[in-house]
Amino acid sequence: MSTLRRDPITARWVTDTDEMQEGITTKDELERLASQGICPVCQGNEKYTPNEIYAIRRVGTIKNQPGWEVRVIPNISPALRIDLELERRPELMYDMMNSVGADEIVVETPEHITNMADLEAPQIAKVLTVYRQRILDLKQDKRFRSIVVFKNYGERTTPSSVKHTCSEVMAMSITPKHLKEELDGAKEYFDYKSRCIFCDIIRQELSTEKRIVSQSNEFIAIAPFASRFEYETWILPKKHSADFETQSDSSIQNLSVFFKEILTRIKALLHDPPYNFIFHLGPNKNARPDFWKTVDEDYHWHIEIMPLFTKVGGFEWGTGYYISEVTPEEAAKQLREVEI
Amino acid sequence: MSTLRRDPITARWVTDTDEMQEGITTKDELERLASQGICPVCQGNEKYTPNEIYAIRRVGTIKNQPGWEVRVIPNISPALRIDLELERRPELMYDMMNSVGADEIVVETPEHITNMADLEAPQIAKVLTVYRQRILDLKQDKRFRSIVVFKNYGERTTPSSVKHTCSEVMAMSITPKHLKEELDGAKEYFDYKSRCIFCDIIRQELSTEKRIVSQSNEFIAIAPFASRFEYETWILPKKHSADFETQSDSSIQNLSVFFKEILTRIKALLHDPPYNFIFHLGPNKNARPDFWKTVDEDYHWHIEIMPLFTKVGGFEWGTGYYISEVTPEEAAKQLREVEI
Repeated sequence: MSTLRRDPITARWVTDTDEMQEGITTKDELERLASQGICPVCQGNEKYTPNEIYAIRRVGTIKNQPGWEVRVIPNISPALRIDLELERRPELMYDMMNSVGADEIVVETPEHITNMADLEAPQIAKVLTVYRQRILDLKQDKRFRSIVVFKNYGERTTPSSVKHTCSEVMAMSITPKHLKEELDGAKEYFDYKSRCIFCDIIRQELSTEKRIVSQSNEFIAIAPFASRFEYETWILPKKHSADFETQSDSSIQNLSVFFKEILTRIKALLHDPPYNFIFHLGPNKNARPDFWKTVDEDYHWHIEIMPLFTKVGGFEWGTGYYISEVTPEEAAKQLREVEI
Repeated sequence: MSTLRRDPITARWVTDTDEMQEGITTKDELERLASQGICPVCQGNEKYTPNEIYAIRRVGTIKNQPGWEVRVIPNISPALRIDLELERRPELMYDMMNSVGADEIVVETPEHITNMADLEAPQIAKVLTVYRQRILDLKQDKRFRSIVVFKNYGERTTPSSVKHTCSEVMAMSITPKHLKEELDGAKEYFDYKSRCIFCDIIRQELSTEKRIVSQSNEFIAIAPFASRFEYETWILPKKHSADFETQSDSSIQNLSVFFKEILTRIKALLHDPPYNFIFHLGPNKNARPDFWKTVDEDYHWHIEIMPLFTKVGGFEWGTGYYISEVTPEEAAKQLREVEI
């Protein structure tokens, strides 16, 4: 039975799981398939995966059969499980709870493509539409305080043997520490200035220009002033919005073209590096309507992309103090000027 | 000129440095030496390193010549520089300061040994004595709010081509975020209970026993209740103490034997894995005497060891929410029972 545990000193949440036996078996199975050159998430291989949760499909095609364009399946070794009651309990001075949550894999294309940057923009738009649908659906569940969408790409960042481009949607009964710090920081700024801190950042970056990677009518990509990682890049909507799932179809179209451009710049400049991205999304107001009263005004959803992040050492991990060998101004310049 | 930058949303500090040209040249030089089979920090090769800051030496031997037992030199590409004024300045809405600090390399033995676990306990005692001396010396400088001692060991955690066992002492003009959270958490607990939270943790672990890796008269090693990493291990002094540098010679002797035992357990169980450790030390009271009024009572120095940490993905990085596949109870049992 896996559990969520709270660090008594820093209030950081951790999940451990001792029910990985099933997961490990299935991972072994995945490795066996990989060694035979079989990709378990490619179209036609649906028999190797659990039952699909959701899919965009061609009309007339059948669930768990070919004909899909984007497909969502449960993680085969989930860190969080949807079939648990939300239960908090103490262990002497410590606090723990059931690790209830959702852990879903988004297979971004039926074809065997490995880097999201190589999908066509209309296909990326379908993936973003699926993110929106999953977030809307999962936010109906009041047990879930926060939802993140993220991706690990590349040899050194993916533990799994599956190379096919996938991302992950996770719904949690807690708010992870760094997201909570961001929410708290944004709220504090708003309480003081009655302005969204992200809108102020966008305004300042547009005026100085030196940390802009690119921009479209609706979106801007910047190297943030206090970048933790070399070539760290954030994509933000220029128009204030706390929630990704309220984006219109046309904004999603616009984002798909822009997102592909940014991923392509990173791929071109850094020679197809490993990268991670995380969608930083407003919390689930259904879970705590009173607590997040001003979040629509004070928070601003965005995407944080971290290339090459595996170079970071234990010092940064342990202290939360980051050392970067490239300034954000230089990173933005290089990303802006690379030929794509 | 490198700078310290403050993230306006989360108040996290980041250093970037655009003066790495020199560092990169010297790194290239290191790689060239490595390719010739020359270790630049071995005894006899002192000409390849900057001038030593401190050393334990045999009587009659000369600075920057053989005869040393433990040797401290400046980092060849320092993230922080000691020769700067402490100056805070704004850049419109952002905050920055000069990246003043110290960044020192402790060469732990004159012989070419790579893993600290393979040093004899009396040699480890000398290394710990050097840490104590450097901390005492650096704490005289009121510009430095916090000092950390840390190590990156193993292929995947060390960016440098130097394999010789070294650790690093860093003094900073800020308090890194995770250390600040720990200090704040400990203070909050003390304000509420008038007890040190680490002393309470030790008491509870001694009573339940299930997360104890090992113990001596003076020290205890545990797998912490909310372990972020598989086989994460903390070493704490049983007797309350905020500052490592106040440890007596005999405590350092005791710790050297115990530290070697724990590093050897990790090496044996996980087959010589990469690991990091960080000494979590009380802040520099000389820098902010009023601010850290109760820190002698509420904080408790300790060592956090993180084996195998490079398996962690971008999700954990971005969210601060960790998923571990081994429970701390199971990790402690395995580390306790491994034959050494």
